[in-house]
Amino acid sequence: MRVGVLTGGGDCPGLNAVIRAVVRKGVQVYGYEFVGFRDGWRGPLEGDTIPLDVQAVRGILPRGGTILGSSRTNPIKIEGGVERIKDNLAGLGVDALIAIGGEDTLGVARQLHDRGVKVVGVPKTIDNDLNATDYTFGFDTAVNIAMEAIDRLHTTAESHHRALICEVMGRHAGWIALHAGMASGANVILIPERPFDIEKVCGYVESRFKTKYAPIIVVAEGAHPADGQMDIQNQELDAFGHVRLGGIGERLAAEIEKRTGKEARTTVLGHIQRGGTPTAFDRVLATRFGLHAIDAVHDGDWGKMVGLNGTDIKRVDLSAATDELKTVPVERYSESEVFFG
Amino acid sequence: MRVGVLTGGGDCPGLNAVIRAVVRKGVQVYGYEFVGFRDGWRGPLEGDTIPLDVQAVRGILPRGGTILGSSRTNPIKIEGGVERIKDNLAGLGVDALIAIGGEDTLGVARQLHDRGVKVVGVPKTIDNDLNATDYTFGFDTAVNIAMEAIDRLHTTAESHHRALICEVMGRHAGWIALHAGMASGANVILIPERPFDIEKVCGYVESRFKTKYAPIIVVAEGAHPADGQMDIQNQELDAFGHVRLGGIGERLAAEIEKRTGKEARTTVLGHIQRGGTPTAFDRVLATRFGLHAIDAVHDGDWGKMVGLNGTDIKRVDLSAATDELKTVPVERYSESEVFFG
Amino acid sequence: MRVGVLTGGGDCPGLNAVIRAVVRKGVQVYGYEFVGFRDGWRGPLEGDTIPLDVQAVRGILPRGGTILGSSRTNPIKIEGGVERIKDNLAGLGVDALIAIGGEDTLGVARQLHDRGVKVVGVPKTIDNDLNATDYTFGFDTAVNIAMEAIDRLHTTAESHHRALICEVMGRHAGWIALHAGMASGANVILIPERPFDIEKVCGYVESRFKTKYAPIIVVAEGAHPADGQMDIQNQELDAFGHVRLGGIGERLAAEIEKRTGKEARTTVLGHIQRGGTPTAFDRVLATRFGLHAIDAVHDGDWGKMVGLNGTDIKRVDLSAATDELKTVPVERYSESEVFFG
Amino acid sequence: MRVGVLTGGGDCPGLNAVIRAVVRKGVQVYGYEFVGFRDGWRGPLEGDTIPLDVQAVRGILPRGGTILGSSRTNPIKIEGGVERIKDNLAGLGVDALIAIGGEDTLGVARQLHDRGVKVVGVPKTIDNDLNATDYTFGFDTAVNIAMEAIDRLHTTAESHHRALICEVMGRHAGWIALHAGMASGANVILIPERPFDIEKVCGYVESRFKTKYAPIIVVAEGAHPADGQMDIQNQELDAFGHVRLGGIGERLAAEIEKRTGKEARTTVLGHIQRGGTPTAFDRVLATRFGLHAIDAVHDGDWGKMVGLNGTDIKRVDLSAATDELKTVPVERYSESEVFFG
Repeated sequence: MRVGVLTGGGDCPGLNAVIRAVVRKGVQVYGYEFVGFRDGWRGPLEGDTIPLDVQAVRGILPRGGTILGSSRTNPIKIEGGVERIKDNLAGLGVDALIAIGGEDTLGVARQLHDRGVKVVGVPKTIDNDLNATDYTFGFDTAVNIAMEAIDRLHTTAESHHRALICEVMGRHAGWIALHAGMASGANVILIPERPFDIEKVCGYVESRFKTKYAPIIVVAEGAHPADGQMDIQNQELDAFGHVRLGGIGERLAAEIEKRTGKEARTTVLGHIQRGGTPTAFDRVLATRFGLHAIDAVHDGDWGKMVGLNGTDIKRVDLSAATDELKTVPVERYSESEVFFG
Repeated sequence: MRVGVLTGGGDCPGLNAVIRAVVRKGVQVYGYEFVGFRDGWRGPLEGDTIPLDVQAVRGILPRGGTILGSSRTNPIKIEGGVERIKDNLAGLGVDALIAIGGEDTLGVARQLHDRGVKVVGVPKTIDNDLNATDYTFGFDTAVNIAMEAIDRLHTTAESHHRALICEVMGRHAGWIALHAGMASGANVILIPERPFDIEKVCGYVESRFKTKYAPIIVVAEGAHPADGQMDIQNQELDAFGHVRLGGIGERLAAEIEKRTGKEARTTVLGHIQRGGTPTAFDRVLATRFGLHAIDAVHDGDWGKMVGLNGTDIKRVDLSAATDELKTVPVERYSESEVFFG
Repeated sequence: MRVGVLTGGGDCPGLNAVIRAVVRKGVQVYGYEFVGFRDGWRGPLEGDTIPLDVQAVRGILPRGGTILGSSRTNPIKIEGGVERIKDNLAGLGVDALIAIGGEDTLGVARQLHDRGVKVVGVPKTIDNDLNATDYTFGFDTAVNIAMEAIDRLHTTAESHHRALICEVMGRHAGWIALHAGMASGANVILIPERPFDIEKVCGYVESRFKTKYAPIIVVAEGAHPADGQMDIQNQELDAFGHVRLGGIGERLAAEIEKRTGKEARTTVLGHIQRGGTPTAFDRVLATRFGLHAIDAVHDGDWGKMVGLNGTDIKRVDLSAATDELKTVPVERYSESEVFFG
Repeated sequence: MRVGVLTGGGDCPGLNAVIRAVVRKGVQVYGYEFVGFRDGWRGPLEGDTIPLDVQAVRGILPRGGTILGSSRTNPIKIEGGVERIKDNLAGLGVDALIAIGGEDTLGVARQLHDRGVKVVGVPKTIDNDLNATDYTFGFDTAVNIAMEAIDRLHTTAESHHRALICEVMGRHAGWIALHAGMASGANVILIPERPFDIEKVCGYVESRFKTKYAPIIVVAEGAHPADGQMDIQNQELDAFGHVRLGGIGERLAAEIEKRTGKEARTTVLGHIQRGGTPTAFDRVLATRFGLHAIDAVHDGDWGKMVGLNGTDIKRVDLSAATDELKTVPVERYSESEVFFG
């Protein structure tokens, strides 16, 4: 059996741990050979491969990023893309694929499966917003990085009588903000699932200033005020369609300054949340995902992906990857509100 | 309602996070008053209290240890101990107790509950060996500390052609060794649940030396060889009944040197595994345990303790704390064996 | 002897270590009493004090921030400010002052000294831009935080073919950028002392992309292009006169995208560089500064401040604090250029 | 010019940073070629080499250990060793050598220089006990690792009324103990330079227990009591001549328990102090050492080694490496005594 492996989408601490586990168990236990595809779906689309054996995966467990590279190439949107992939797999003698990625990457995997390609998926989303698994790897690392940054902000907030805002990842789901905010004792946590009331936020800020401490606000990048409340200006987009200036963190600081007369500063953590060495939780989870993914290949359980259920790894249909998002439920957010203000 | 809080047994990162959550929600949401008891069951036994209000719990979330102190005092074993506790609670106007601790502390809580004391428990074991909950707080922190230490050992092992052994906590269950070992790419993991075969261990050591890397062995303090295999000498006990010298890590190093002719060195992590600031996972888990424990008090759900089930906090009987240990199942250990040698 | 202590200006990891050392040695060795002044020069100006004894400084060594609070209040600019301070010191029975702060705080100290107040200074600048000392505490911590962030960016840069920019502190001197950039293997380092050539920067970016790695650019907040090279727009100022949007990091990313056609992303580390627990280097340096400052008080060596010279602490005139800035010399910058591109 | 590079003795965070800087500047600025010798002096002795070019040093800056391997092989003690090295260098076309190592490695370098080999040295000692330089790389990393471990011990000490001992590296000089102890607020620091009075140590322990905190004792592995004070038993040696059991930390704990009746526990940090990624200070220092060493080669300044003097790198005679040890002077130790008890 010759198995291809690829990683797609944004990078996430733990990708290399998955790759290593897949290869180690595949070679040592099942006697498989492996082919690494470069840069997500671009690899099989263009037949761009790298050698992938036990030697290639030595020492990569603690390293962030992915030795296979990544991209957002979507072969479905490319004329004849699926056929080219099937041809390339046949040409390379690749019998089965393990696709490690998020909603987009696994959506492609599912469609390839529907067209007869033997695929097993491993879910990846740093935002933890996937229904099919209790947690995804990378999330715990991101939360710890954000928590450590906010721990550091606390001492400055206390010394300077200044509101400090920390903008974290989370376009559609507020898991990182919720966990990092709870873990670091944030005075307000704002998430995309719950449009915020700017007056209430300013109320928390002002009541916090009445203690000898200054407020820390954790805001997910996708959080937004209730309609009409803030004068969020049109945001400048760069050549790649990403917002460059004036994220919610900056706008919120300006609004708080205007309304409360107190100084406010924003830190946007950005890419440092997704790089570097994974935490133990993520290394163990990613390793177990890899081990169970190659088991699924061995069982011929195509069209499935692995997921965490309590402390067990189970298999679910690839379609679960493209189900509705797992957003923060109201009870979880309410838990955190006890600590607001 | 006036609620007493105590922490018993060995300390664990996250104890302060539990205390803070209990007090913040108890005061702000339910309007309760709190009494802190010093040093575990010694506090209620001797009526030794400290003030416990919102001010007292400010800033303690990230701090290891416990602001209430701890001890291993067991009032059940003291003549008239239970009556003295009941008298002291009555005298102090304490209506209910939240006991945070392990098997021993919660065993006492259960017996007090049987004798009419209103008690809710919060489980604590850094070894993660409790059946009633998926994880206990402190475990994730200990695993990360051990993993970081082993990450550091890797570079020395690679540079010096020397076997390195890391002894971690785990007297009866090998969870810390299993997770830290998987997370750090250990070449052998030895746990109490599986008496090891010293010849097999030496075989892994020798095969590893044939690559350009040197072996790293992670061993739980309670691991032991199959009968008669190693000349484990009687271990010197100190005045407090603890083993002082010659733990399994040191003995294993001596045995490996003798059998393989290769140098071996041991690091015993000891207390650094249980101190310091908790990880985000442990801060969130401990905070949620605290919030749900005070909810149980509010509901008058006496004789219960909180536990983690997937991503939910549930309540179980206090008796679950003294059920049989949650040891590492054979399937989990087998997962790790893929990476041995 | 009754000694007042204050901390002024931006906070810096190590301030608490200085305060602790001053008080511990002052009380235990010299038998002095202490008065803490709140919020920099605002404290003596308004007679706002807090108790400062051995108990008050317990446990503060590892904590960032300052237990005394800080401000940028300048009594020289306030009508009758100096007289009010002298009156308050007399009224409180304060015989001498230890002022811990940067150019502004120590500039005030010097003028008070000229008017007869007994003052000793401890220099503080996270930017390390003070001629009178080899290093200032807080700098090493800031450099390590920046380095760890950039280490994390590396893995993302490698996985995504995207230029990553990290903006660090340094308005007038590029020490943090230089050290963090050298320590983390940055491909370009831009500092205020050397207006950069945007074409050269883009050249490095493009040559780096030709390897399989993506470029990392470390830029000090005060760095700027050679005249006319970049269309740096007027930057929006907030109500407090600080630049809110469009720092050099963001502008540089936009310019690189425009010129090279490659994606570029910026992380602005901001306040997380100055918060949190100090490194060992900073804790030792700050502790030694504190010990030597109280020795200077004991010796009646007024108008002096402490400084590091190699591995020794020496005393220099307070005027040295307001001398010209210690900027990065050309030889030091040239060392780093070996690694550009 | 063809330059050989080797690393000898115990490993030290920063070795790879030196190698990278030597090669990057040597290739890019001076146009040199390089040969890596494996495992210290064993490499040139046996002609065992590995390729060493810009590609080989990519990504090694943050990695602990040494890509060249290390050993304690001493060619001077081998019959005809020096001649074999000279022959091998000639045979490989190696014009000059850069030797990175401690007293032993550089002692060999000096003797080779005396016999006509073109050598430049880079000093390395994690113990920081070399007179010719203010600091050596690796020391700052070791101190930070020890400090973080001791920070963690504090919370346990506070919660458990138990004396905690941390044994750190330092056979002949107490620099690591002094800096880690000062940085972490140890209550007693014991170093080889000052035989300790066990009664005084127990006095500090007892006075500390009278506060609500428990004592932390930092002890260098080479520290020892004044003559006849402690019943230090003969220590068991292993097959390699190293002390296996009963280091000073364990013995001290036993003695304190016996004399004070208080529980005492020891953590021996061991190899984790010398592994893993270097701090910023060590990465910058090691990089600058490497840059200046290759400059010395370019200048033909043979028989020299580089050293740190304040903030400058200077050159000194190789003989300085084998001068008397730089031990902790009495004034530095006295500074720390302010915090004892």
